[in-house]
Amino acid sequence: MSNGMMDIGVVGMGVMGSNLAFNMADHGFQVAGWNRTPDMTEDAAKRNPPANFHPFYDLKEFIGSLKKPRRVFLMIAAGDPVDWAIGEIAPLLEAGDIILDGGNSFYEDTRRRHDALKEKNICYFGVGVSGGEKGARLGPAIMPGGDRAAYESVRPILEGIAARAGEEPCCTYIGEDGAGHYVKMVHNGIEYADMQLIAETYLILKHVGGLSNARIGEIFHAWNSGELRSYLIGITADIFAEVDEETGAALVDIIVDRAGQKGTGRWTSLEALARGVDLSMISAACNARVLSNLTEERAHAGAVMTAPEGAAVTVDADFIEAVRCSLYTAKIVAYAQGFSLYRAAKEEFGWSLDFGKIASIFRAGCIIQAEFLQRITDAYEKEPNLKNLMFDDFFLSSINGNAPSLRRTVCLAVERGVPIPAFSAAMQYIDAFRSPQLGANLIQAQRDYFGAHTFERVDKEGSFHHVWQEHYEK
Amino acid sequence: MSNGMMDIGVVGMGVMGSNLAFNMADHGFQVAGWNRTPDMTEDAAKRNPPANFHPFYDLKEFIGSLKKPRRVFLMIAAGDPVDWAIGEIAPLLEAGDIILDGGNSFYEDTRRRHDALKEKNICYFGVGVSGGEKGARLGPAIMPGGDRAAYESVRPILEGIAARAGEEPCCTYIGEDGAGHYVKMVHNGIEYADMQLIAETYLILKHVGGLSNARIGEIFHAWNSGELRSYLIGITADIFAEVDEETGAALVDIIVDRAGQKGTGRWTSLEALARGVDLSMISAACNARVLSNLTEERAHAGAVMTAPEGAAVTVDADFIEAVRCSLYTAKIVAYAQGFSLYRAAKEEFGWSLDFGKIASIFRAGCIIQAEFLQRITDAYEKEPNLKNLMFDDFFLSSINGNAPSLRRTVCLAVERGVPIPAFSAAMQYIDAFRSPQLGANLIQAQRDYFGAHTFERVDKEGSFHHVWQEHYEK
Repeated sequence: MSNGMMDIGVVGMGVMGSNLAFNMADHGFQVAGWNRTPDMTEDAAKRNPPANFHPFYDLKEFIGSLKKPRRVFLMIAAGDPVDWAIGEIAPLLEAGDIILDGGNSFYEDTRRRHDALKEKNICYFGVGVSGGEKGARLGPAIMPGGDRAAYESVRPILEGIAARAGEEPCCTYIGEDGAGHYVKMVHNGIEYADMQLIAETYLILKHVGGLSNARIGEIFHAWNSGELRSYLIGITADIFAEVDEETGAALVDIIVDRAGQKGTGRWTSLEALARGVDLSMISAACNARVLSNLTEERAHAGAVMTAPEGAAVTVDADFIEAVRCSLYTAKIVAYAQGFSLYRAAKEEFGWSLDFGKIASIFRAGCIIQAEFLQRITDAYEKEPNLKNLMFDDFFLSSINGNAPSLRRTVCLAVERGVPIPAFSAAMQYIDAFRSPQLGANLIQAQRDYFGAHTFERVDKEGSFHHVWQEHYEK
Repeated sequence: MSNGMMDIGVVGMGVMGSNLAFNMADHGFQVAGWNRTPDMTEDAAKRNPPANFHPFYDLKEFIGSLKKPRRVFLMIAAGDPVDWAIGEIAPLLEAGDIILDGGNSFYEDTRRRHDALKEKNICYFGVGVSGGEKGARLGPAIMPGGDRAAYESVRPILEGIAARAGEEPCCTYIGEDGAGHYVKMVHNGIEYADMQLIAETYLILKHVGGLSNARIGEIFHAWNSGELRSYLIGITADIFAEVDEETGAALVDIIVDRAGQKGTGRWTSLEALARGVDLSMISAACNARVLSNLTEERAHAGAVMTAPEGAAVTVDADFIEAVRCSLYTAKIVAYAQGFSLYRAAKEEFGWSLDFGKIASIFRAGCIIQAEFLQRITDAYEKEPNLKNLMFDDFFLSSINGNAPSLRRTVCLAVERGVPIPAFSAAMQYIDAFRSPQLGANLIQAQRDYFGAHTFERVDKEGSFHHVWQEHYEK
């Protein structure tokens, strides 16, 4: 293969990188592949790659093989490896060339790298890629952030390899510098909340409803034909149908009740705190995973802390439907929170985020793919400045109709001692928004009492300090 | 006054700094005062200071007035001003001299400054000071962190001016470098949770119980004689007794339902996420203040979102007692969460934190002062390695006895649509700890299904990946 013929070069020949490279090659692009250690590239070359895939073992030859403007797609571990790769590759590039980072980089790092490379006239894209190994190979959801003008040069490849929702590619230009990685980060946070809600639904069906794994699997399967239809509900139905070969038991019962996390959910929670946005459901999901790992403390607590009795519950179709409505409502709230953070980020960073388009590219390829997302797209197309997703007519009428079910489900779980932190957080978010009073007037009175922080009055403008009296002896 | 006669110099002659300087002077120490702008020092000198207070208008003369080893106490705004002051003052000091920072500095900044000054053989203390203006003048709670050996040189002054709980000073050596500011930060986070719980209690008594301000004030006053006795409960009773002179209404009703925050609560939540510790109640308190400021969205939500009906409640002594028990239980959980963060920080930073002593210095001088804190001291004296405060016999029996009340109160509020995010978080924390199952087994199955993240089995050691089947068509 002569020089300057490759459409794109992929750096990182691990599973994700090679799968993405093969995906590009399948779509007719000439793809060069290179890895810091040549053995990974050799492995990839042996895995029956498409004809358009070309392994390289020398970085200069790899770069030399690329058409101009050169396009280099990094698919390597986030953090120092990205800085290392940029340090090696950037000196071999020219003005107008493009580096794309498809890893789970923190958006602040992406902003820093973008600005540093801009000084060298190299375009930099932070690209959120969702869908795991399978998505990378067959079509992921792709969230590219970087310079608008340079996007046209990478668009055919990115939109070509992305998942399809109907005819539409699950890839759109997201916004400037770190916007793509930011949107991916919050996507992962929403994924945490989605998974936690399903786990709590399982606990309610099992411990409040007393239902078997088989029955719970059927219920999730049935729900997957309705408004809850989504990838996560679908695989949950599959999971309950799975039998452990060694024991003959349902496999879900053989798995230890302890969940790991890789950090993007926590990043989202941290970011929400920094922006002053309430993401209580995502935080609850992160914390639930944290607590699940306190094995020793949980065993001790289970032995010494008293479980409630809880009254008997009639488990009928109404009960199951109330749980379904609760799950759907809580899911709306999780997305309302996540999209509130997008709104805050748009304002903070001046990104040209299109919330409707963001929801629309989540419709396929990624973990949170769901029919429901079309409703979010519709909502923002109708009202791009929607202050909160809950205020859209469709979601509002759903919340108003289903809130009684959510209240009932939350109370049943609390009475029975079944932990439902994400459902609870959803309920509290709804009530905090719609309640005429949060008690913040008392908090502000306390702050003025002990710290002269002043307060506002309901009947006139201004800040006021009151000289509070000690009415009671202390 | 000749050179080298002053026991300590205070930098920053604002209200906090001058009050603290006067407090030192009252206790027999010769105190030099200096401010970047001389007008503040002049103002302080005019405010009838104790005879031992000596204003200075020249930084070199101020430093020259100090006994060796020199002790310079910064009482200035956190952030850049502290770095500026250190830059001006450190070159005028000698090896063995001591700088103390009494502001609300972020503990990471304190660690950085400590390490930088150590290279110049200057000792640096980050000193948490709680109690506001009044506390500074009459006796605050003081949390000094820095070099153990150098503490003896500042101990007589710090312990001399601190608040007293009985005979004991509310000041103790906390730990190395940033430990003092860290402990103060979490103290403030706990304060947020304490205040939020009181605000939610008020909402329950008002909107579930239908009680008047006068009755609510009496209830808080009565509670202040029992196990809830604390500064915050006491001032809450005072607040409800306060009448607005202009309107004749209860002042609490004239105050806008919107609370501010200065950031230390949010720092605590961020730190908890970074350490992987569940501080849901403090986060709920921060988020409640955030939401209280969304005035426009709240008004809209109130107009379009349906409020629940809620069944009638019998408001009798049992109801009020159940609310009291709920508040006490939730308060225990808030402290259990806060002290879990201390435990994580001790491990992370290698600080010699003594949890019992920390609780004991909160007993007077600071906002969260409460009789209840003696119980925490007792718990850690009995078992210094207590994994969670909830496991101490006293607190455990209280939680076990009161959890039914908390369940009832949470459900009543949820049924009535009264927002109680902190009470809910307390309930969920209890149930998450004691529940035999969190549903994390399902989450881990999902993670293995879509990302090959593997899982552990209940029946043998190791990590396992399962090849999941699609049982249902998608």
